[in-house]
Amino acid sequence: MSEGPFHWEDLQPGQQQTTGSVSVSEAEIIAFAQQFDPQPFHTDPGAAPKLAFGGLVASGWHTAALTMRLIVGGGLEFAGGAIGRGLEELGWPKPVRPGDTLTAVNEVLATRPLKSMATHGLVRLRTTTFNQHGETVQMMVSVVLVPRRSEAR
Amino acid sequence: MSEGPFHWEDLQPGQQQTTGSVSVSEAEIIAFAQQFDPQPFHTDPGAAPKLAFGGLVASGWHTAALTMRLIVGGGLEFAGGAIGRGLEELGWPKPVRPGDTLTAVNEVLATRPLKSMATHGLVRLRTTTFNQHGETVQMMVSVVLVPRRSEAR
Repeated sequence: MSEGPFHWEDLQPGQQQTTGSVSVSEAEIIAFAQQFDPQPFHTDPGAAPKLAFGGLVASGWHTAALTMRLIVGGGLEFAGGAIGRGLEELGWPKPVRPGDTLTAVNEVLATRPLKSMATHGLVRLRTTTFNQHGETVQMMVSVVLVPRRSEAR
Repeated sequence: MSEGPFHWEDLQPGQQQTTGSVSVSEAEIIAFAQQFDPQPFHTDPGAAPKLAFGGLVASGWHTAALTMRLIVGGGLEFAGGAIGRGLEELGWPKPVRPGDTLTAVNEVLATRPLKSMATHGLVRLRTTTFNQHGETVQMMVSVVLVPRRSEAR
């Protein structure tokens, strides 16, 4: 898949794109969770070893936000910005742990024009986020509004 | 619906629970987006009026994280913590804007035991997040692992 920024017309089912990487520290995991998901397996390194995940893990919402950072800053750049219409699927098969480095792969599943909005088209995208061991930490299928080339409208 | 913390056995389809509220400022919207979703309609109050939403709006992931904060801190407390298995649906019908105050309503859609894990059961939950005008800013259907009462295992 070539370099962005992409217009809707550039996207075809089967295209794949690998993002850059991002690492996450214990302090970042705790800070995010204290603000948004204050449960001890996300915030308390002392208690976490005896809790559900056997150690401190990131909130799934932190994993999702880091994945968005990879999408926006890591290569899949849409002309004029991408607007999330919604998600069809979001799952966290394995947790993210302190020191993990994440990379995502975006794959275009489908595209279709929008009758209600001549300036944008819809893209169904699967984004799989991996840790440094190649294990899947997040699987997401999203529907995104992507700007069309103005000459094609 | 009574006060938590809830065990899996306490939850029945149709039960509803309203969380507390949380407000979000322009500075918080910008700070979250700079870290996780740096697109100008989330980060640049000067440029945003001319962009997609006609003004600065929160990243959908910020709305999702704030909703998690309402769930965890706002009343739907599960004994020993709730573990998100994944989402079946997540959508943002309207954006969150600076100064908005959000409240969520949780509704139990279904419950079922887990063969693979005697200590927890599954709960399918719809969480609808509203702004101060009663408009829906997020609709989510999640599947959560909820601890069972130990005497019932």
